[in-house]
Amino acid sequence: MKVARFSSGTGARYGIIDGDEIVVLTGDPMFNGFETTDERLPLAEIKIVAPVIPRSKVVAIGRNYAEHAKELGNETPTEPMMFLKPNTSVVGPGDAIMLPPQSEHVSFEGELAVVIGSIAKNVAEADADSVIFGYTIANDVTARDLQKKDGQWSRAKGFDTFCPLGPVIETEFQVAAQSIRTTVNGDLKQDGTVDQMVHSVASLVAYASSVFTLLPGDLILTGTPAGVGQIVNGDTVEITIEEIGTLSNPVRTASR
Amino acid sequence: MKVARFSSGTGARYGIIDGDEIVVLTGDPMFNGFETTDERLPLAEIKIVAPVIPRSKVVAIGRNYAEHAKELGNETPTEPMMFLKPNTSVVGPGDAIMLPPQSEHVSFEGELAVVIGSIAKNVAEADADSVIFGYTIANDVTARDLQKKDGQWSRAKGFDTFCPLGPVIETEFQVAAQSIRTTVNGDLKQDGTVDQMVHSVASLVAYASSVFTLLPGDLILTGTPAGVGQIVNGDTVEITIEEIGTLSNPVRTASR
Repeated sequence: MKVARFSSGTGARYGIIDGDEIVVLTGDPMFNGFETTDERLPLAEIKIVAPVIPRSKVVAIGRNYAEHAKELGNETPTEPMMFLKPNTSVVGPGDAIMLPPQSEHVSFEGELAVVIGSIAKNVAEADADSVIFGYTIANDVTARDLQKKDGQWSRAKGFDTFCPLGPVIETEFQVAAQSIRTTVNGDLKQDGTVDQMVHSVASLVAYASSVFTLLPGDLILTGTPAGVGQIVNGDTVEITIEEIGTLSNPVRTASR
Repeated sequence: MKVARFSSGTGARYGIIDGDEIVVLTGDPMFNGFETTDERLPLAEIKIVAPVIPRSKVVAIGRNYAEHAKELGNETPTEPMMFLKPNTSVVGPGDAIMLPPQSEHVSFEGELAVVIGSIAKNVAEADADSVIFGYTIANDVTARDLQKKDGQWSRAKGFDTFCPLGPVIETEFQVAAQSIRTTVNGDLKQDGTVDQMVHSVASLVAYASSVFTLLPGDLILTGTPAGVGQIVNGDTVEITIEEIGTLSNPVRTASR
């Protein structure tokens, strides 16, 4: 099932995508299940927004595809390399990535994102699926120059709009060899498969939950394949993951 | 005014400390102002909890006291060194700091914490006071071995219970030369004044808000003075900031 969150004039609501329509749910399916209302709306008439705003954190993993670690001159870490993005960096499909004045080089990073569905601490790898609500697509936007300069990545990866998310949460996705592709203005930049991850989704859930309590709606961004590169004002970035969909965002220069 | 959040059997409520009593407020003063109810309760009969749970983020600043940077062999950074702690790391006065099995060396770090009171983006230094609700005390608990090993500090500083907070928010605090002291089992370990910060509170608010939108209840931890050191099972850490109070937490070994 493809779950979407949408705005239709009366605040955010949830629904299930059915062809070119959305079947409206009675509430947030993460907490209220999948009970439907009688309402169906054409997708053309609604605005899809970020499928979830984490109550707590976006956990992200660095250098989790070997070819990407290599392209930036890094070793592949033996343990997951974990950092945090704030929930204020999340935007939805179609929302602009705003290039901040502090950076001269902002890059896209297309990623598979795990959506946590229940309170999770010290989860065993074998039990990881039981705390996963579904999967969506994320762009781990990064100010590459600030990332190199700062040491800590919180600024470089934490700006407002630096975590586009969506368009839907696929609740039936199981990691296999689905393709993950990123284009900028239609040109193919990243072309991998999600089974190329160094640390599996199950091991990332176990690792993150051995440190933090994960809350429903928290995200784990699982790292990016090779092919990252700069985006500039006027670009459009599209990330497509097989079985989930396409996350598309324009790029704009922020004014202060 | 000293604002406290407390649990009295019916969920968290807010009040103002008045001698050995608390005057109960009608709601969260950050959103509802300081309207009082007729109720007064003896402090001895209530449990004070963390004065705020950030909706979004705990922004923390590294190496912001020159003597502390030096004691760990680091330069004082010319720009603030910013990192994030998740809201799941927050606990209240009296709650145990749980030592995780992943670390052999956990350290206390006593810090002045700024509580943000309104939505804040690109705040000028001169306007910083207008977005500050008040000040409290934080312990930026750190797994020093993992901090050195990981590169990124999210794990070392992000474990559950690694951000004790409280006991109150002092809404009238103005940074001057107030003392900040940390003791472990009564022995004085840190003894500084908050005017020893390299980057002022106003400059930290400006810097953080130039990156992230700060939300009401978000925190900025302003760095720790010299004197950090290890804590072990059975210890009690107390951080006292003049005009605010004392934050006391026991230390326990976590079992998995």
